[in-house]
Amino acid sequence: MKKFMDKDFLLSTPTGVELFEKFAKETPIIDYHCHLVPAEIATNKQFGNITEAWLYADHYKWRAIRACGYEEKYVTGGEGVSDYDRFVAYANTMPRAIGNPLYHWTHLELQRYFGFDKPLSGKTADEAWEKCNAKLNAGNMGAKDLIMASNVKVLCTTDDPADTLEYHIEIAKDKNFTAKVLPAFRPDKAVNIEKAGFSEYITEKLEVTYGSKIENIDELCACMIKRLDFFASLGCKTSDHGMDYVPYAPCTKEQADAVYKKARSGEQVTDAEADMYKTYMLSFFAEEFSKRDWVMQIHYGVVRNNSDKNFKNIGVDAGFDTIAGHDCIRNILKLMNYFENKTELPKMVYYSLNPIENAQLDAMCGCFQGNDKGIKSKIQHGSAWWFNDHLEGMRDQLKTFAATGVLANFVGMLTDSRSFLSYPRHEYFRRILCDYLGRLVDGGEYPYDIEALGEIVKGISFDNANKFFGFNV
Amino acid sequence: MKKFMDKDFLLSTPTGVELFEKFAKETPIIDYHCHLVPAEIATNKQFGNITEAWLYADHYKWRAIRACGYEEKYVTGGEGVSDYDRFVAYANTMPRAIGNPLYHWTHLELQRYFGFDKPLSGKTADEAWEKCNAKLNAGNMGAKDLIMASNVKVLCTTDDPADTLEYHIEIAKDKNFTAKVLPAFRPDKAVNIEKAGFSEYITEKLEVTYGSKIENIDELCACMIKRLDFFASLGCKTSDHGMDYVPYAPCTKEQADAVYKKARSGEQVTDAEADMYKTYMLSFFAEEFSKRDWVMQIHYGVVRNNSDKNFKNIGVDAGFDTIAGHDCIRNILKLMNYFENKTELPKMVYYSLNPIENAQLDAMCGCFQGNDKGIKSKIQHGSAWWFNDHLEGMRDQLKTFAATGVLANFVGMLTDSRSFLSYPRHEYFRRILCDYLGRLVDGGEYPYDIEALGEIVKGISFDNANKFFGFNV
Amino acid sequence: MKKFMDKDFLLSTPTGVELFEKFAKETPIIDYHCHLVPAEIATNKQFGNITEAWLYADHYKWRAIRACGYEEKYVTGGEGVSDYDRFVAYANTMPRAIGNPLYHWTHLELQRYFGFDKPLSGKTADEAWEKCNAKLNAGNMGAKDLIMASNVKVLCTTDDPADTLEYHIEIAKDKNFTAKVLPAFRPDKAVNIEKAGFSEYITEKLEVTYGSKIENIDELCACMIKRLDFFASLGCKTSDHGMDYVPYAPCTKEQADAVYKKARSGEQVTDAEADMYKTYMLSFFAEEFSKRDWVMQIHYGVVRNNSDKNFKNIGVDAGFDTIAGHDCIRNILKLMNYFENKTELPKMVYYSLNPIENAQLDAMCGCFQGNDKGIKSKIQHGSAWWFNDHLEGMRDQLKTFAATGVLANFVGMLTDSRSFLSYPRHEYFRRILCDYLGRLVDGGEYPYDIEALGEIVKGISFDNANKFFGFNV
Repeated sequence: MKKFMDKDFLLSTPTGVELFEKFAKETPIIDYHCHLVPAEIATNKQFGNITEAWLYADHYKWRAIRACGYEEKYVTGGEGVSDYDRFVAYANTMPRAIGNPLYHWTHLELQRYFGFDKPLSGKTADEAWEKCNAKLNAGNMGAKDLIMASNVKVLCTTDDPADTLEYHIEIAKDKNFTAKVLPAFRPDKAVNIEKAGFSEYITEKLEVTYGSKIENIDELCACMIKRLDFFASLGCKTSDHGMDYVPYAPCTKEQADAVYKKARSGEQVTDAEADMYKTYMLSFFAEEFSKRDWVMQIHYGVVRNNSDKNFKNIGVDAGFDTIAGHDCIRNILKLMNYFENKTELPKMVYYSLNPIENAQLDAMCGCFQGNDKGIKSKIQHGSAWWFNDHLEGMRDQLKTFAATGVLANFVGMLTDSRSFLSYPRHEYFRRILCDYLGRLVDGGEYPYDIEALGEIVKGISFDNANKFFGFNV
Repeated sequence: MKKFMDKDFLLSTPTGVELFEKFAKETPIIDYHCHLVPAEIATNKQFGNITEAWLYADHYKWRAIRACGYEEKYVTGGEGVSDYDRFVAYANTMPRAIGNPLYHWTHLELQRYFGFDKPLSGKTADEAWEKCNAKLNAGNMGAKDLIMASNVKVLCTTDDPADTLEYHIEIAKDKNFTAKVLPAFRPDKAVNIEKAGFSEYITEKLEVTYGSKIENIDELCACMIKRLDFFASLGCKTSDHGMDYVPYAPCTKEQADAVYKKARSGEQVTDAEADMYKTYMLSFFAEEFSKRDWVMQIHYGVVRNNSDKNFKNIGVDAGFDTIAGHDCIRNILKLMNYFENKTELPKMVYYSLNPIENAQLDAMCGCFQGNDKGIKSKIQHGSAWWFNDHLEGMRDQLKTFAATGVLANFVGMLTDSRSFLSYPRHEYFRRILCDYLGRLVDGGEYPYDIEALGEIVKGISFDNANKFFGFNV
Repeated sequence: MKKFMDKDFLLSTPTGVELFEKFAKETPIIDYHCHLVPAEIATNKQFGNITEAWLYADHYKWRAIRACGYEEKYVTGGEGVSDYDRFVAYANTMPRAIGNPLYHWTHLELQRYFGFDKPLSGKTADEAWEKCNAKLNAGNMGAKDLIMASNVKVLCTTDDPADTLEYHIEIAKDKNFTAKVLPAFRPDKAVNIEKAGFSEYITEKLEVTYGSKIENIDELCACMIKRLDFFASLGCKTSDHGMDYVPYAPCTKEQADAVYKKARSGEQVTDAEADMYKTYMLSFFAEEFSKRDWVMQIHYGVVRNNSDKNFKNIGVDAGFDTIAGHDCIRNILKLMNYFENKTELPKMVYYSLNPIENAQLDAMCGCFQGNDKGIKSKIQHGSAWWFNDHLEGMRDQLKTFAATGVLANFVGMLTDSRSFLSYPRHEYFRRILCDYLGRLVDGGEYPYDIEALGEIVKGISFDNANKFFGFNV
């Protein structure tokens, strides 16, 4: 029996252990896609207790607690329920969550940040509560402290085009803070024209930042170019596009303009109109990203806010989203060809929430790799993601990437997280990666060429993302 | 080399063995979903020979024999073919069926019920034939004997609302028979309005039992409430809904009523009308089940009777059904939200024949868990099912349930079987479960906490279903 | 650590090793589906260097090189790039392609044909280049030599109905050449009526070979019967149908005739018309194949030529095809039933590019196995195929076939290859097969019955295909 989550956690062969120790363990982190709040970094946000750090905003944990039959007030808070009560509810949930990645993330965080090595349960809840809170209150566990202690060299937040990025500017001024905190450009609110609040967003946010009216598609694109340049001036290297599904409905500028004006006038656009507008805007962005050598990230396959009742009571991002069943590959293929016919393709990373699309995505990527700039795997299938960031999901993504692509080119892990404590997920990923590679070597499927293997591990852990995104750290 | 199907069958690590021995092996069975015939239980049906018990009604075995090139008369019977001949055909098929769960089920049944330990093949067919038949004719292998010998505490048959449940009443009177045999409410014939025979069913069955005309949707619902109450009075705790696909087409009572009347008048309803009527009825049932604290089971994803030729010659449930390719998750999400907006959701279990929907189903369940009654995993993804009840299928269902849900809450295995000899499938499931958990522990992924693990194993084997369905045994 | 790709490559248990050594290693090859060029066989084509043999026509390798950021001229050739340069590009790609089947195929070919045992990389590129080229120029490495050295007893090329098969006739005359080279009938150009060039194909190819006008569907069918008979006279036993998706749109002969005439007149047919015509023709062929006892192979699920840009520059089959996301199972079920209602089903093998359809295909096959000729698994799910011919893909296909079918009946591996060096893929498949079976035995899931196991391994490696296709070698 291996010791529980010990030194060789998830590493099942000698070569796996060697690869992790030599090439992964000490390698710094690039977290090119997360949802940390820049203001919290800038102010080195402190946490009063572990519930605040863990349970105030983590819908993964909320879903687990809810599934264990706790009333909603123990999940997202409510009258008569203390932070301690909420922590105990989560601790009680833990032993039941066998096989859930939460179990491993929780214990990695307890071990790495709090030096707490016991399994968390109702029995150990009090001890953990005290130990974690004491640490959090010791004065060296603020947002910046945690980022630096986690050996993060670059992290990209997710930012609206209308954002002033004032906190990014402020963070960059702190010379004692060794991590680069870069914005990522997420124009979803300007793209998803069918969603409630589109026109208000343009009026109340985008026009305000832009300082001018945006009355047609030309003005919108002009505004976006300004914002892209501003983001670029602060080191931005990537965009992020979240879509329920990938549209494909090419149209003229005049048609897109008409849809834009219709939406701005307060009228609801049809699905077909929305698809046209989105195709137009995505294509515009692809061209702009290509010019700027940015990476375009597209993720899709989500159905959000499936419970009206809970949406009304609790709101968005509260654990009521799920995996969609759309067949998007046909649109993706057409959209990629459309981009390619108009411009040089930007570097791209695709993510789907639905794991049954892994093989389709990897095979699709293989159709669009050609380039004369030496970019390795210019179009990539991104790391296993929301609902797939468990052991099997991550192993499957690696195997499928490898089976029809060139794994050594992979840009690797991202946290996609809202928590300053989630960096051990990079360790988790690297252990899975080293175990996968180690098994191949120890099983006689790949030679024990430690130089080549080291290059692969370091590449996927750090170097590839550094080069692909152009962070140059 | 491990001995063939020995004591530690499917258990690959020491903790797996320990969990099975201590917590699973002797734990009784709740079979909350099967297709046993109540009359056969009530009369303690005897089997003249092993062909009668195994091959008269098992389309899994029929498909295997057919695939081995036997003429249909060796499969489903026919002139000039004896029960012995049919058994030999099956025995010849066995060694070829490597990797098929039939291979394991067959040998578990031979070992557990007949004390026959050799692999079945053409060579051992005669010996097995004699040994099995001798046992079957020894006088202690009737339906009731087999159920008790299998340590079954509760079993739920599948019953039409029009059924008088006379055999359930009779069975309950036998105080020497220790298993509870409860009805399950399966109103498919009253729901699937587009199918041939709908109107005849209402007239010839439902109205007869009800003792009154059912001329509109109000009267249909009134009848159903009577039947629900009657079923409940006999201990019924669950319904079962089989659908080709999950519909979603909300409509008014007036619209549903119009569709009902159209169908009753002998007109064929359109697909859109059928979807409206079904959505109405499912919603009605969800509300009634919620009131009664029943569990609503929905299974879908089948395409039935794919061969006209064989349907004409042999009929239904003869091995000509298969896995559908529908994308049902969008309708399920909308239907769940619709239910939730109307009423408190009932406890539910969803099954799909298509394994590619595992992740979608598990993620969907996570959106609807909230409740203030302490119900654990109120909405569940049911055990690997028809076409998925093999090793990989069952492992995949467990892993996916665990990865995005809380595995310890799972209500576990059901046989979905027509055979009194199929209870070793619970053993099969428990071995797979204990092996899965044991591997996690022995691989250092979960602590060796025998108390927590024991609770999980006993829970999934018995306690969870007992509590979830409210059997209270 | 196992030695890299040594004697026991991929064999992880003693029984796996025994099965491979005793029953697979020396067993000859039937390659019932490949894309070798008959003229190249007839003329015993020689290769000037390893780039010519490996890199002139292999889009798998092209995709890998492209993904490593090489300019297109290093991939498909171009000014200033020598064959040596192209080989070095591929050698540099190799160590990065960990987990890709190319890695194993490449090293199996280096070991088996060239006696080169080192891992290929930039470092060993020169040594490999010289050693391979020396061997290729030694005079005993022509097309025929390679086929015979690979122990191939039968291979089926892929041939158009309009083909004169002159090279097949010539090959058959060479009594020193021990492999049977048979044509396979691939009428795609006459079936896929919606594709550009359909009418030209009829006029310029089919009418020329037929020696008569083909002005209506009766004449087309009459022509096809002539060609079928001609193919049969040269030993043809199988057809091959490549379709983007499987259509189902039954129509009368008159309707099919009208669509045919429309297309011949130069008008573009609609999708619905194309589906009708195709359904008619496939049904016609199914009937003709059934009469002739041929095997009908259907593969689908591809989207071809996804990059206009590269299609214009490089053309077809250049690495720009991918996996489709269609749901084809409903059409397949209806088409099978339609065939069965019209005629006795021919023996069939189905392949999908999309691995998520494995379970659906295997379950579908189970619905159509019945026959009174003793044919085992008359309808089969073919071996893991394009984009799925990697370790996991092949294992998954075997496991799914076994789980819901009868694995011992499987007709096994095909190369689907354009290369004379690709026969080690049969070895690769057999190692995976023996490992799978060996694990079952050594894990106690199947008895150590070496006779039954030997029959299964030899069956899947050779005997089943020999019997199923009727090659009688």
